[in-house]
Amino acid sequence: MKLTKEQAQEIKDQQSQSNSTKRVTAPELEKILYEAIPILDHGFIRVVDYMGDDTSIVQAARVSYGKGTKKVSTDSGLIKYLMRHWHSTPFEMCEIKYHVKLPIFIARQWIRHRTANVNEYSARYSILDKEFYLPSSENLAAQSQSNRQGRGEVIEGEQAKQVLELLKNDAERTYKNYEEMLNQRFDGTTIDENKKGLARELARMNLTLNTYTQWYWKTDLLNLMNFLRLRADSHAQYEIRAYADAMLDTVKKWVPITYEAFMDYRVGGTEVSSKGKKVIQKLISGEKVDIEQSGLSKREWNELMLALELKDKLI
Amino acid sequence: MKLTKEQAQEIKDQQSQSNSTKRVTAPELEKILYEAIPILDHGFIRVVDYMGDDTSIVQAARVSYGKGTKKVSTDSGLIKYLMRHWHSTPFEMCEIKYHVKLPIFIARQWIRHRTANVNEYSARYSILDKEFYLPSSENLAAQSQSNRQGRGEVIEGEQAKQVLELLKNDAERTYKNYEEMLNQRFDGTTIDENKKGLARELARMNLTLNTYTQWYWKTDLLNLMNFLRLRADSHAQYEIRAYADAMLDTVKKWVPITYEAFMDYRVGGTEVSSKGKKVIQKLISGEKVDIEQSGLSKREWNELMLALELKDKLI
Amino acid sequence: MKLTKEQAQEIKDQQSQSNSTKRVTAPELEKILYEAIPILDHGFIRVVDYMGDDTSIVQAARVSYGKGTKKVSTDSGLIKYLMRHWHSTPFEMCEIKYHVKLPIFIARQWIRHRTANVNEYSARYSILDKEFYLPSSENLAAQSQSNRQGRGEVIEGEQAKQVLELLKNDAERTYKNYEEMLNQRFDGTTIDENKKGLARELARMNLTLNTYTQWYWKTDLLNLMNFLRLRADSHAQYEIRAYADAMLDTVKKWVPITYEAFMDYRVGGTEVSSKGKKVIQKLISGEKVDIEQSGLSKREWNELMLALELKDKLI
Amino acid sequence: MKLTKEQAQEIKDQQSQSNSTKRVTAPELEKILYEAIPILDHGFIRVVDYMGDDTSIVQAARVSYGKGTKKVSTDSGLIKYLMRHWHSTPFEMCEIKYHVKLPIFIARQWIRHRTANVNEYSARYSILDKEFYLPSSENLAAQSQSNRQGRGEVIEGEQAKQVLELLKNDAERTYKNYEEMLNQRFDGTTIDENKKGLARELARMNLTLNTYTQWYWKTDLLNLMNFLRLRADSHAQYEIRAYADAMLDTVKKWVPITYEAFMDYRVGGTEVSSKGKKVIQKLISGEKVDIEQSGLSKREWNELMLALELKDKLI
Repeated sequence: MKLTKEQAQEIKDQQSQSNSTKRVTAPELEKILYEAIPILDHGFIRVVDYMGDDTSIVQAARVSYGKGTKKVSTDSGLIKYLMRHWHSTPFEMCEIKYHVKLPIFIARQWIRHRTANVNEYSARYSILDKEFYLPSSENLAAQSQSNRQGRGEVIEGEQAKQVLELLKNDAERTYKNYEEMLNQRFDGTTIDENKKGLARELARMNLTLNTYTQWYWKTDLLNLMNFLRLRADSHAQYEIRAYADAMLDTVKKWVPITYEAFMDYRVGGTEVSSKGKKVIQKLISGEKVDIEQSGLSKREWNELMLALELKDKLI
Repeated sequence: MKLTKEQAQEIKDQQSQSNSTKRVTAPELEKILYEAIPILDHGFIRVVDYMGDDTSIVQAARVSYGKGTKKVSTDSGLIKYLMRHWHSTPFEMCEIKYHVKLPIFIARQWIRHRTANVNEYSARYSILDKEFYLPSSENLAAQSQSNRQGRGEVIEGEQAKQVLELLKNDAERTYKNYEEMLNQRFDGTTIDENKKGLARELARMNLTLNTYTQWYWKTDLLNLMNFLRLRADSHAQYEIRAYADAMLDTVKKWVPITYEAFMDYRVGGTEVSSKGKKVIQKLISGEKVDIEQSGLSKREWNELMLALELKDKLI
Repeated sequence: MKLTKEQAQEIKDQQSQSNSTKRVTAPELEKILYEAIPILDHGFIRVVDYMGDDTSIVQAARVSYGKGTKKVSTDSGLIKYLMRHWHSTPFEMCEIKYHVKLPIFIARQWIRHRTANVNEYSARYSILDKEFYLPSSENLAAQSQSNRQGRGEVIEGEQAKQVLELLKNDAERTYKNYEEMLNQRFDGTTIDENKKGLARELARMNLTLNTYTQWYWKTDLLNLMNFLRLRADSHAQYEIRAYADAMLDTVKKWVPITYEAFMDYRVGGTEVSSKGKKVIQKLISGEKVDIEQSGLSKREWNELMLALELKDKLI
Repeated sequence: MKLTKEQAQEIKDQQSQSNSTKRVTAPELEKILYEAIPILDHGFIRVVDYMGDDTSIVQAARVSYGKGTKKVSTDSGLIKYLMRHWHSTPFEMCEIKYHVKLPIFIARQWIRHRTANVNEYSARYSILDKEFYLPSSENLAAQSQSNRQGRGEVIEGEQAKQVLELLKNDAERTYKNYEEMLNQRFDGTTIDENKKGLARELARMNLTLNTYTQWYWKTDLLNLMNFLRLRADSHAQYEIRAYADAMLDTVKKWVPITYEAFMDYRVGGTEVSSKGKKVIQKLISGEKVDIEQSGLSKREWNELMLALELKDKLI
C-alpha cells in the first residue's frame, strides 16, 4: 500500500485532532482511528468514525426490558444473552464508518450487503488511480474440482508466472488505453492538445475488474456482524476475507464483549437441523444410527460431522 | 414533564462526562447532549448520541466526486448543491440517536418510518408508567369539516371540560384496572398476596392509546430529514409536530449548514407538476390562463396557488 | 369473526374472478385466495395476492450459479441446499400480500419487522370498528414466575371472571366515550346535532390497546420466514403466534418445498455455540464433561440440553 | 442482441403458458411478458413476473383511509392525489421482476438502488459470456467541458474509429486471456489437457467493465419510480437511460393511471426552493426582481429558469 503524500498528510491531520465530547468513547479504537491498515497489495481499511460501544447495547436493552433486565447482573451476561437469543435490535445502536480501498471485483461482492450507506469514488467525475490487484503467489489457486465456487491447489512454476504476466500486462495496457481515450494521463496532464478526450463515464469501461476503487462504507454493528459472519468465513473468497479479518480486529477493539459473544455464538457456532438433532441424540445415547435412518443426504451428513469435528464419522 | 429522581441522576451523570476523542464533534449539540427537552404534558426528547457533522457530508461527497468537487469552493456551496440535486447518499454519513417519551398513538405514526433502529420499552417485561397524554385546551380541536384527516375550530367551554374529563377518567380507570389485573401497583408493591397476577403481556391490552411509552430511536441524517419533512409539516398531527419541531432545533445545532439548505429546499420549497409549470409560465408572460385550459383540477389549481402564496388566484 | 355483509360480498366477488395469466401460479394457494381465516375472537388473515412459487426460487438460483447448479439435479435438493447455506437472495424472489385484522397491541409487535410494506386503516380518517379482543379462558394466564416475558398457569374461577369483566367493561366504556367525543356513533349517525365532534385524530387516543385494527401487509418470502421463525416460536406471545401459525399453513400451500426445508432447518433446528460444540463432541465420544469444564453458564447448559432434548442432562 | 437457442426456447415455453388465477392481471403487460426487449448492442430487459395493478394501489389506499376515500370518486383521481401528496405506501403494494442483461459498469450504477432484490449471474461459479458493450457511433461523446459528469460533442472520424478499436481489441484480448487462465474456452472445452485452470473467482478479474452480466431484479412500484426518476432523467448516463426508458414503457403497460400521474408530477415536474418561490411570485406580479435581491446563486437562478423554461431570463 502506497499512500500519496496528500493522503498521508490528511491521516496525520485527522489523528492529531483531540476533541472533548460527552459521548461514550472506545479507547482502543481511538488508538487506531483514521489509520490505514494495509490489505492485499494496494488496498486498505481505515475506521474513520464510530458511535457507541458495548455499554450502548446494554443501555438499549435495559430500556426495552425495563426492570426485566435487572436480574442479569453483568453487561457481559446481558450481551451474551442477547446474542444467543437473536435479540438483535440493541446491536443496531452502534454505528461505524470505514474508508476502504479495494479491487472492483471485490467491491461488487461487498455491495450486495444492502443495509449500509456508501459513497464510492465516481469514475464519471474523476480519473481512477493506476492501481490494480495482482494476487501474491500463495494466493494463485487453481479451480477446485469438488467445489464450483472454490479454490484448489496453488498454481506454481511457469504457469504461475504466465498468469501473473497476463494479469499485469492486460491491466497496464487497458489502463494505458484508458488514458489514451481520455487524452489525459492519470497525473492530470493532457496527452494531445489538439484532441478532445472521450467522456470519463465511457472511457472507464475499458478498465479491468482488478482496478482499485475506494469508498466510505457505514453500517450498524448488527449488519456489520452479518457481513463478517459471511465474509470472514472459510468459504468466502480469500480477497474479501482479507478485508473481513482486518475488520474483525477493529470490532474487537471497539466492542470487546460483543466481539467475544459473536465469535462464540456465530462465527464458531453451527446450526443443526431437526433431523440433525435426532442424529446427535442417538450418537450421545450410544444408539446405532446410520445415514439411511437419519433422513439426511450424504452431503448433509458430512456437513454435520464436519461442523461437529467428528471426522471419523465422515462417509 | 416529571423526571424520576433516578432519571434526573442518570442525565446528570451522563452530562458530567468528558471524554477525549479524535472524532469530529458538534459543539452546539454537545451543549444539550442528554438533556430532556419537554414535549406535550409528559413527553420529552433527548439527543443521546451522534456521529459526524457538516464536514462529514462534505468529506463523503469529495470522495465520491474526487477532483470533480474542487470547483465548488465552499462547504456550504457543496451542501446546497447536494440538497438541490437530490445527491442524497452523503447525508447518510451522519447518524443521531434520540431517547423519546411519547404517547402510544403517536408512537404508532412514528414507527411507520421504517429506516431507523428502535428499542422500545416492552410492556411484556415491565409495567408501564402511570402517565397519559391529555391535550391542553388550545389543542382540543373539533373535526375539520373540509379535511377528513384534519382539525377544525377549538372546542371550548362545557364541551371541552367534558372531553378532558372523559379522557382523564378513562385513562385513570383503565390504568387502575391494569394494576388490579397485574395484582401489582406501578410502584412494584403487590395488591393481594393471595392472588397471582395476570401476565403483563395480557394486562397491557387494557391501557388506552394516550398512555406514554419510550424508546431509543436512531437514524441517519437523510432519513431524519425525510421524517421531519413530513412530520414538521403543517398537515401533520399537532402532537407529532411538537416532537418534530424540537428535533428540527437539534438538527440546527448539529449540522447548521445542512439545516439551512433543508429549510430552503425542502421544508420551505414546493413541487410543481408538468401542468403546473405551464400555468406559471403563462402567468409570468402575462398570458391569460384559466383552470379549464390548464388541465388542473380545482383542487390542484388551489394547491398550486397556495404553495406560491398567490391567494388572489384561488377559485 | 363476524364479517360485515359488505365484506362478505367483496370476498365473494374476489373469489369468483377467473383471469388468464402467463405467470406461474400456486394452485393450492389459489384455492384459499381472499378467504378470511378466523384468528382469535374477531381477527382474520386473508392472502390477497402473491407472486412466484417454488420454481421462482430455483430459477433465480440457477441464474446466479449458472452452470454451477446443474449438478444439483432436483428442485427440492437445490432449495434445501440454499436454505442450509443461508443463500438467502433467491427466497426474496417470491412475494405475498395479506389482509390482516388484529388487536392493536399485537399490531405494535408485528410492525417491528421493518422489511415489509404496510397500509393500515387510519383512525385519523375514519372511525374504528367496535371490536376488541378478549382472551378465551384457556388463554388467561398468570405472569410466569421464572420468565419475565412469559406466561405461567392459567387463571381460573372467580379471578378469571373478574379479569374478563374488567377488560370487557373498560373496552366498552372507552369505546362509548370515543363515540361521545366524536359526537358520532360507529354506524355513522350523529349523536347531538347541536355539537361539533372532537377531531378523530384526537378521540382515538381514548381507545384501549385490545381494539382491533386492520392492514394490508406485503413482504417477500425470506422476510416472511424471518417473521415466522420468531413469531411461530413457542416463546412468542400466544396472540401473535395464532396469526403466525395460520400464515405457516399458507406458506405450505404456496411453496411446499421451501416450507419443508424451512421447518427442518429453521423452525425445528437449533444453533450450537462454539463451546456447545465441544460439549457435544465429548458427550458423543463418551468423555466425561461437566458444566464447569464446559465454560457454559448454567442457563446456557440447560438451553443446550433442552434444544437437543436431553432432559436427563438438565441441572 | 443475440439470444442463444436455449434462451429463445425458454422464452417461447414461458410465453406459451396459460394459467388460470383469481389474482388481478394487467392484460397489456401480459402481452409482452417474458419477451426480451433489446437494449444497447447485446443487452435486454424482460418482465418475468409482476403482482398487482392500478386497482391494488386504490384498494390499499381505501383500506388506509376507510370511509375517508369515498369522496374521491374515481381511481384516477385517488391515484393522482396520492402521487401529489407523497402518500407513497399504496404504491409499494405492486411488485415487478425483471431479467436484465447489462454491461458491468452500468450494473455498478444500478445496484446503488438498495431497495430491491437481486440475483446476479456469478462469475465465481460459471464462465461469463463473451459479450461486451461497444458504443454506437452517435454515443461516442467527448467529455463535457462544463459538466464534470456529462458528455459533450460527439467524437467523429479517425479518433472515433480509434477509440472503438481500442475498446474492441482490449475487450477481446482480456477475454482471450481470461479463457487462457481458466484453461477453458467459453464453450466449455478445455484448452490444454495437461494444465489446471486458474480459479474462476480469480480469472474474472481480468475482464473489462464493459463485459455483459445479467440478473433478476425485483422491486416494488414506489422504488421502481424512484429508480426511473433518476435514471430516465436527461442527466443520467445514456447507457442506463436506455434501460430506464424501456422500463418506463413496461410501467405504462402495467399501471397506466399511475404512469400518467408519475409523468406529470415527478418526471415532468420540478421543485422550487423557498427563495425560488419568492422569485416566481415577483415575476408573476410584474415586480422587478434580480438575482442579487433573490438570494439565489447564479447557478440556482439559471436552474430555476431552465426548469420553468424561461430561457430569456437566463443570465
